[in-house]
Amino acid sequence: MTNDIEIISVGNELLIGKTLNTNAQWLAKRLTALGLSVSRITTIKDEVPEIVKAVKETMLRKPRFIITTGGLGPTFDDKTLEGIAKACDSTLQINEDALQMVTGKYVKYAEEMKHEAFELTPARRKMAKIPEGATPLPNPVGTAPAVLLTHKTLTLFALPGVPSEMKAIFTASLLPIFKEAASDLTFFETSMCVEGVMESEIAPFLAQVMHRNPYIYIKSHPLGAEKTPKIELHLSTTAQDVTTAKKRVSQALIQLSEIVEAKGGTAQIVK
Amino acid sequence: MTNDIEIISVGNELLIGKTLNTNAQWLAKRLTALGLSVSRITTIKDEVPEIVKAVKETMLRKPRFIITTGGLGPTFDDKTLEGIAKACDSTLQINEDALQMVTGKYVKYAEEMKHEAFELTPARRKMAKIPEGATPLPNPVGTAPAVLLTHKTLTLFALPGVPSEMKAIFTASLLPIFKEAASDLTFFETSMCVEGVMESEIAPFLAQVMHRNPYIYIKSHPLGAEKTPKIELHLSTTAQDVTTAKKRVSQALIQLSEIVEAKGGTAQIVK
Repeated sequence: MTNDIEIISVGNELLIGKTLNTNAQWLAKRLTALGLSVSRITTIKDEVPEIVKAVKETMLRKPRFIITTGGLGPTFDDKTLEGIAKACDSTLQINEDALQMVTGKYVKYAEEMKHEAFELTPARRKMAKIPEGATPLPNPVGTAPAVLLTHKTLTLFALPGVPSEMKAIFTASLLPIFKEAASDLTFFETSMCVEGVMESEIAPFLAQVMHRNPYIYIKSHPLGAEKTPKIELHLSTTAQDVTTAKKRVSQALIQLSEIVEAKGGTAQIVK
Repeated sequence: MTNDIEIISVGNELLIGKTLNTNAQWLAKRLTALGLSVSRITTIKDEVPEIVKAVKETMLRKPRFIITTGGLGPTFDDKTLEGIAKACDSTLQINEDALQMVTGKYVKYAEEMKHEAFELTPARRKMAKIPEGATPLPNPVGTAPAVLLTHKTLTLFALPGVPSEMKAIFTASLLPIFKEAASDLTFFETSMCVEGVMESEIAPFLAQVMHRNPYIYIKSHPLGAEKTPKIELHLSTTAQDVTTAKKRVSQALIQLSEIVEAKGGTAQIVK
């Protein structure tokens, strides 16, 4: 199952190195655990032409899903939906359901803060302007609704960039859809820590073991240096059920351990 | 100065959420501090067709520099240079300087480990195979050299994915080149923490202050929620010298503080 999902992370803060892109990692981890595959993560500035270009380029690669994060709030630089609308030849319009969600939030805030009723200023109404035909998804934590848009064979989700909001919306609204999309697939991973064998020495055997175990992907991550060798071998597979997945991984682990021991090293399963 | 640099992060571990992309953030932070602009970060799988496609797409956007991280090691899935070569209509060849660097490392390792001489196996020679016409850059920490490739108006650097190696090579070989490229530009940033004013309330004024201070970029980052408002306002500018940069930022800070206070909130400079 390839090219399932692409993530587009929108935000200058990610491109100036102010913020670490933990959102993309969080999403990738969860989607992978479901048995789905994230094929690309693209991080772009919050400028409309950039967003349009990135969304169009992504659509050309025909993923089943696109998830964007960031740029749904009330400020001038929250431009993700404008960019998505343009990329899909659509326009932004006040969505009545979205407006109700936003209005409801400010009524609740006024009550909780014992404040007079908040005016629905243009900045606040902006959060209810979504591409025509799109569906707003409730934000259990913050104010701006997320957005679900289907365009030809593509399903696009626009999530906020604030991690707590992004996670809450993913869990409430996206997870059921992705579980359905993943049907019965399951992802299984294990790591083995190898000491006393250089990465360059074990390299040819990784390809060999992968060849003998066609559903297993093995990746080596050097933890020490060549001269004080310590390597994490990460084994993963996507299978129809956990039993099959575990069986496949165990078989490859045994083969790898034997190779490591024959080379005079030690191998230990770490998780 | 736009579209200076694009970063391409290569590695399945980033797309399954196993590893957080700290390399891209580290690079973006340093390049921004020099006054340069990172316009995009693209994270892709370590598969040759994917690397070729991403490098070609990136070249079409005509950045001055591309930095890739990951995929230079001795294993079968270290395919970045193969992808770069194909994207630039070049081929991989043993580079004599690179071979000397790799050979030198194994001689050193053998001495340090009091080990007999290490054979230069195909997996080890692989690290000296670089695109034709490219220049190897010494790796002060690990084994695989980094690569500098010029192609038409583009300068491309391929760095290893192991953070300590990537950082050491950046500092030793890339920093002087980027310092030169940035000439006298300087980046300056400050954050102001605002409490007691909702993000939706301050939103219209951010655009106003940016309009009055055309070289200043302001971005709001909600730290609380709308009802318990706490917002970080991040101000940044790129200028010819630090004095000008600081003056610009101070002016915008004063204007913002006045707005926040007029709205009944408090503002505090945090760094």
